[in-house]
Amino acid sequence: MSKVKTGIVMMNLGGPASLDEVEPFLLELFADREIIQLPFQRWLGPFIARRRAPRVRGLYAQIGGGSPILRYTRAQGQGMVERLDRLSPETAPHGFYVAFRYVQPKSEDALRAMAADGVERAVAFTQYPQFSCSTTGSSLNELWRAAGRLGMRDAFEWSLIDRWPVHHGFIAAMTETVREGLTQFDAAERDRVLILFSAHSLPLDVIDRGDAYPQEVGASVQAVVERLARPNPYILAFQSEVGPVRWLGPSTERVIRRLGARGQKQVLVVPIAFTSDHIETLSELDREYGEVAHRVGITQYKRSPALNDRPQFLDALADIVREHLATGRPYSSQYRTRCPGCENPQCRQVLKPIGADLRAPGQPAGATR
Amino acid sequence: MSKVKTGIVMMNLGGPASLDEVEPFLLELFADREIIQLPFQRWLGPFIARRRAPRVRGLYAQIGGGSPILRYTRAQGQGMVERLDRLSPETAPHGFYVAFRYVQPKSEDALRAMAADGVERAVAFTQYPQFSCSTTGSSLNELWRAAGRLGMRDAFEWSLIDRWPVHHGFIAAMTETVREGLTQFDAAERDRVLILFSAHSLPLDVIDRGDAYPQEVGASVQAVVERLARPNPYILAFQSEVGPVRWLGPSTERVIRRLGARGQKQVLVVPIAFTSDHIETLSELDREYGEVAHRVGITQYKRSPALNDRPQFLDALADIVREHLATGRPYSSQYRTRCPGCENPQCRQVLKPIGADLRAPGQPAGATR
Repeated sequence: MSKVKTGIVMMNLGGPASLDEVEPFLLELFADREIIQLPFQRWLGPFIARRRAPRVRGLYAQIGGGSPILRYTRAQGQGMVERLDRLSPETAPHGFYVAFRYVQPKSEDALRAMAADGVERAVAFTQYPQFSCSTTGSSLNELWRAAGRLGMRDAFEWSLIDRWPVHHGFIAAMTETVREGLTQFDAAERDRVLILFSAHSLPLDVIDRGDAYPQEVGASVQAVVERLARPNPYILAFQSEVGPVRWLGPSTERVIRRLGARGQKQVLVVPIAFTSDHIETLSELDREYGEVAHRVGITQYKRSPALNDRPQFLDALADIVREHLATGRPYSSQYRTRCPGCENPQCRQVLKPIGADLRAPGQPAGATR
Repeated sequence: MSKVKTGIVMMNLGGPASLDEVEPFLLELFADREIIQLPFQRWLGPFIARRRAPRVRGLYAQIGGGSPILRYTRAQGQGMVERLDRLSPETAPHGFYVAFRYVQPKSEDALRAMAADGVERAVAFTQYPQFSCSTTGSSLNELWRAAGRLGMRDAFEWSLIDRWPVHHGFIAAMTETVREGLTQFDAAERDRVLILFSAHSLPLDVIDRGDAYPQEVGASVQAVVERLARPNPYILAFQSEVGPVRWLGPSTERVIRRLGARGQKQVLVVPIAFTSDHIETLSELDREYGEVAHRVGITQYKRSPALNDRPQFLDALADIVREHLATGRPYSSQYRTRCPGCENPQCRQVLKPIGADLRAPGQPAGATR
């Protein structure tokens, strides 16, 4: 294999690829204080993880025995670097490296593979379009820690793409998934379909710290509906809340119940903050909420397809990286803006950033801001 | 005066024009169950209003003895109709009518004046860029009730402009206020200024019902920063929370405290959901939070100017109405989408809408969606 000049780390949550990985995945998830803060976490985290494991294994069994997120992330990475080699020959050859947060391949795996490939310039590319400290923030913190554990603090020069909530290519691809989703309804009824955008929720304590996520999700929704330019009503709701604390609403499940009670018959649910199918789409949106919808009288409950390996989305991924590389900037102006309420000193670091000075006067913040 | 063909109702909260109007204003505000729901409201509302009145009178005394919102709304209306008469001669002459929610001129005043002017076609134009049931929703419900009380249910054919969170003219004008705000800082330090967008908060119960407001405010912020294209960090926070219930965060005041504690020296606060100066900008943002900022060590705390009667904003208002009239549609596709958790049967009505059918297939939703 020829030496890789530009290595792109595809950061995402990940999901268990097999049923055996479910419990280890949950153990890691519930141990991460950057995403979940529990009292007596060392004891309570494993307790909750082990208690939930059988049920979650059952959910994964229903969707084919594991999460397809690694397959899709690889397809996204492959499509992206092929395009980048054509679009940006000066930074080629490009390689991609998957870094999941709670299952393999993890940050260490990505870093070792990058070293083996002789990568010079590294780009940490979040696969979450909208920034949250609990997703992109946690992944980046872990990436830098992993580099420290491996003694690879100086191995690469880094820059990062930390958010892309309204990137034109992302919005174009998302809008196409909505259009495709709408074709599942009779043409005569298509304009009556309520479009229910659904994003993963966050505990209100995270919101109150000043997490950028709700603002950026709101912007993504607006950009999609503007581009869609259809008369369909739409609502943004938040899914997957767990545990006793209060989460950001409105809750997707409760919205579905209420829409049904009101006589809404057609609902298209659109995952606006995930790019690949995984348990929150295939199990929670499709099966769990689908059953709720059926019970409350929504006769046509459909979901728009995830971006997965759609060529238009691969184009968008390549374009986001190309635009980022062209700016020569190490990170967006927003990345260094810590949440006002944050008390985690690890946040918002960059290991060994490329040379450009973010604060250079008059520099526009760029398309990946 | 020549007969007015198109009457445009400028709907807003309003504020007491003199100190004598403060208590009546608060009495009306705390009696409105569409904005505040209290136990034993008939008794507790007046109790709270009377108890707050002296302090609020003091605040109005500090900002010149009353709210300037009527003066600005009239200037906005005047500038808007002058432009519309030029831009849209086929719907001219245009007249504007102010309908405040809790002080005069109220909906009745607007409706009576419209009848006196011989208005044929009426447009209810919210002056809140982002839709919330507690602002635009409450104003519209009151407008229809007032028409009922006056026996004017059939007096006019109505259409309505219920939101314009990312209208290009509004975003252009807002972005200019931010640029102007930044000129208050030394050029050498301008890029370090943290831009703190601040919008009025809402109780979480309203959010959980499915109010569109946070999504639309998020979209406005994104549109402004994209257009601004500057490296400044920014945060969206929410102000003016009162009482014992939990409100949408992060709280503007708490964010200011935390920024100061962290050593942030320059902050520009930007009112993103108000179009005119009133007590929330002149007193709360400028004085109250200004004192907080000073105490926590923010050496330069400034506010961007409100849109008020800036010509660019008058252009935007005229453009929003012109585009709306050109669609021939009675309301945006979103207006009829009731909050999933709403239990107020009054919501989302239109008294006597103009003829076009919203559900006509394939109709784009238009710029004021």
